[in-house]
Amino acid sequence: MSETRTPAIQDEYAAEFAQCYGCGRLNKDGHQFRTVWQGEKTYTEYEPASEHTAIPGFVYGGVIASLIDCHGTGSASLALHRKNGFEPGSGEEPPRFVTASLHVDYLKPTPQGVTLKAFGEVEEIHPKKFKVTIEVIADGTVCATGTVVAVVMPSSFGK
Amino acid sequence: MSETRTPAIQDEYAAEFAQCYGCGRLNKDGHQFRTVWQGEKTYTEYEPASEHTAIPGFVYGGVIASLIDCHGTGSASLALHRKNGFEPGSGEEPPRFVTASLHVDYLKPTPQGVTLKAFGEVEEIHPKKFKVTIEVIADGTVCATGTVVAVVMPSSFGK
Repeated sequence: MSETRTPAIQDEYAAEFAQCYGCGRLNKDGHQFRTVWQGEKTYTEYEPASEHTAIPGFVYGGVIASLIDCHGTGSASLALHRKNGFEPGSGEEPPRFVTASLHVDYLKPTPQGVTLKAFGEVEEIHPKKFKVTIEVIADGTVCATGTVVAVVMPSSFGK
Repeated sequence: MSETRTPAIQDEYAAEFAQCYGCGRLNKDGHQFRTVWQGEKTYTEYEPASEHTAIPGFVYGGVIASLIDCHGTGSASLALHRKNGFEPGSGEEPPRFVTASLHVDYLKPTPQGVTLKAFGEVEEIHPKKFKVTIEVIADGTVCATGTVVAVVMPSSFGK
């Protein structure tokens, strides 16, 4: 890891919330998506592996859905963390969100071998519920759009 | 492969359409989802791997979205194949669908270590466009529901 890499929200999750196959920094087998602010938008980039294919040459939709999913929860966490007065790198533990719903529209076949760029806009629809609207861009073309409704993880989650 | 295993629609895809990370029988690194008829519903089962975690003990939503995605396209293929007079195992090449849109509602945390069961109902909304409504069940509980709109892969796909 470069010392100068922009801190991502996932860098700050508590260890028990950093095991996610999509965005957990401690999941060595996962995608390790990292979500940062880029101006007023949120940003995650990812280059799918060669096995993440739909048909040869094009990216599997489930990986795009995964990118959108974690970009959504990460963006919601960035937004609430900022509302609480913090930014990634401050060392404060951010709120952890879970996905209530995920919607993806696949607009174009997504080419493999390029870095996908996901941009998000975050809207608070309730103090504990955020909607994130996302575009996934490959080689300058919007290949998929998505919407994630993310809610603060209830303390009862999984109990 | 057992000689008596029920043929899945993915067993019949042409080789160039059998590389999918979700459901391609030829993708050794993928999930290899297999979709079959079960009465009038379609059925796919899958046990996520230990690394497919959201938080420890619970399945990553992106893997559930992937299961719903491929169950959707596989179910649409099963339905159109049947409409054309064929069933998996007949040796006829089935139509290959792509996902136009994917929607997932995450209703409950999905436990790891159990086989997930996805059931689908297929509705033709146009001769080349099918809607599949899906329930994902773990340990008898519906943990997620999904809707996939799948369209016959255009011959121009990716060109």
